[in-house]
Amino acid sequence: MFAPVYLDHNATTPLAPAVRAAMLPWLGERFGNASSRHEYGRAARKAIDEARAQVAAAVGAHPTEVIFTSGGSEANNLFIKGAAALMKPGLVAVSAIEHPCVREPARQLTKSGWRCEEIAVDAAGRIDEQSFETLLADKPRLVSAMLANNETGVIQNVAALAAAVKAKGGWMHCDAVQALGKIPLDFRALGVHGLTVSAHKIQGPLGAGALVLDKRVELAPLVAGGGQERTLRSGTENVMAIVGFGVACELAAAEIDTRAARLAKLQQRLEAGLTQMGARIFSAAAPRLSNTSFFAIAGVDGETLVGKLDRAGFAVASGSACSSANPEPSHTLLAMGVEAGVARAAVRVSLGAGNSEQDVDGFLKALGDNLANLRTLAAMAV
Amino acid sequence: MFAPVYLDHNATTPLAPAVRAAMLPWLGERFGNASSRHEYGRAARKAIDEARAQVAAAVGAHPTEVIFTSGGSEANNLFIKGAAALMKPGLVAVSAIEHPCVREPARQLTKSGWRCEEIAVDAAGRIDEQSFETLLADKPRLVSAMLANNETGVIQNVAALAAAVKAKGGWMHCDAVQALGKIPLDFRALGVHGLTVSAHKIQGPLGAGALVLDKRVELAPLVAGGGQERTLRSGTENVMAIVGFGVACELAAAEIDTRAARLAKLQQRLEAGLTQMGARIFSAAAPRLSNTSFFAIAGVDGETLVGKLDRAGFAVASGSACSSANPEPSHTLLAMGVEAGVARAAVRVSLGAGNSEQDVDGFLKALGDNLANLRTLAAMAV
Repeated sequence: MFAPVYLDHNATTPLAPAVRAAMLPWLGERFGNASSRHEYGRAARKAIDEARAQVAAAVGAHPTEVIFTSGGSEANNLFIKGAAALMKPGLVAVSAIEHPCVREPARQLTKSGWRCEEIAVDAAGRIDEQSFETLLADKPRLVSAMLANNETGVIQNVAALAAAVKAKGGWMHCDAVQALGKIPLDFRALGVHGLTVSAHKIQGPLGAGALVLDKRVELAPLVAGGGQERTLRSGTENVMAIVGFGVACELAAAEIDTRAARLAKLQQRLEAGLTQMGARIFSAAAPRLSNTSFFAIAGVDGETLVGKLDRAGFAVASGSACSSANPEPSHTLLAMGVEAGVARAAVRVSLGAGNSEQDVDGFLKALGDNLANLRTLAAMAV
Repeated sequence: MFAPVYLDHNATTPLAPAVRAAMLPWLGERFGNASSRHEYGRAARKAIDEARAQVAAAVGAHPTEVIFTSGGSEANNLFIKGAAALMKPGLVAVSAIEHPCVREPARQLTKSGWRCEEIAVDAAGRIDEQSFETLLADKPRLVSAMLANNETGVIQNVAALAAAVKAKGGWMHCDAVQALGKIPLDFRALGVHGLTVSAHKIQGPLGAGALVLDKRVELAPLVAGGGQERTLRSGTENVMAIVGFGVACELAAAEIDTRAARLAKLQQRLEAGLTQMGARIFSAAAPRLSNTSFFAIAGVDGETLVGKLDRAGFAVASGSACSSANPEPSHTLLAMGVEAGVARAAVRVSLGAGNSEQDVDGFLKALGDNLANLRTLAAMAV
């Protein structure tokens, strides 16, 4: 198999060796339905309980506040739809740069009488205070804002937003899928009612995520049935994935400072090279994750460049993976007021555990070569 | 680890070696977000497409009709809630012996103006024709009936039910989670609009299931967002689990006759022994799965017996795993008119790939020993 250098860790990540090691027995001699009363079931239950404690510890929550789901999209939908189902319709406000799995469920609430508004962001991708204050005056019942953006990496001051929302009697949700493992995460300090995290962005497996939920919040389940996860998420628990999620959380929490510092150095090196090539780095003026660089080079189509870089051995993205099938430019960039032509040039590099200085240098070299080619072609086409 | 003989395959199953082998690379060098455009993403997409074809082939459907979910519970909820969300409220009818992940979403529809009725079953656990006809006269918009019951193993004539429901203009759903791999399954021949299957009951992994959906059926998604699975199920696909599901389906379809014949022999041996001990085998008069024996021995508490058998080295259940935390007797048995005292004595043995004649004989021996002990204790207590 052709294995390009992987520079797309915000889309998904390979498993950490310790995560894999913890999961492997659950593909073999260990198996069981955690609801079963016999030895196999009790062992599965115990493994889930341990993982629940690991996830809770990584986000500063109590284990009973962790509701396992199949992933981040489900957790986001569960909070927004589940909370709305038990409320009188009102205003739901989500930031303009949320992932579709927050924006879509919020929009769908309009079918049941809700009003859905977007909170604007400024040119650097930070939530616009004026827009937020205006919406707050309308007393939103539900507000959702992500901690770190999947495309730009911009970090929002969610604690301040949550305090303001709560002062008005609303419920605050935060999608922290991209923040987990990259910046410290404390459920209590954030003061949100619901926090979404996911395993596969932190060297854990696909198939596990969690909604960390304040006990005062009542939710209607999306998946009803056997009553697992305190009746909030029925279905036989995916033990293997949950076990991997727990270990990934423990590792991420233990290594967060060293990981972030290492990636920050690589990011500096990358962005110095990009700037030299004339790239515009989006959200450079805002606090950002130390692994994420979203940039554009004038006159180059992002999709075309991503394709060429892939063939040259570097796996990067033109934006979030979820919208890769969508020819529209990044909604995050459009919300920041970036013009469509520039947004179409966007390329995202998201660094991770496996990446080295050599990877960054190799990428910059490949990018430079391809830019020269693309420009020659463009010149010939004139 | 203490490893009792596993006789609870209707709760979950260990992975088949070929399933494990297919999954292992996805815990290692293979990984990727199937929505990514680069090599890693395309490889993940290709693996999912292959699995989709394998699942479709096992149930006689077209690959485009297969919507992957996190499991059976989600697929059942998706059909019932998703279909209802786009209809005018009306009557939803589900059999009285459905799994909670069918009954609960159907009941929840009453909050949005639906009427929910249960279709009665006879003493052997078959759907009662009179009850079905009566409900049919009320033109249900949605009907759900399982193909094989998880506790008794009773097989319903779903094709006939579906034809009748469709003649009245309703939509028919079938939970085939326990049927897959045990009896032939043909989506077209069943004539249902939606069919639920799951991986972990057929030596596949936890974390993957599917709703097989007639293209004429429109559904609102439970999990909205990135637009995966034809917008019907957003969220990064669990490649590892889906790959395992595909291989498990291929194996199950290829081996269905030999597996069923082998298990039927074991079941005969088991039930001959049980009958000799004075056990009442539920649904003995109905067509049943060849792996499932649900029985009661008068005067013995099922939960107590299951605990004692576990300590003696045999993992069985007192009913469905999902209701193991529930002290109520099996709702399936109550719906069949079994009195609560007898239902509380129920024990389920569900055989699977790893089981042998020795396992059955050992189980019967352990059961006999425990019965003798329990009876001595009961006599002393008088």
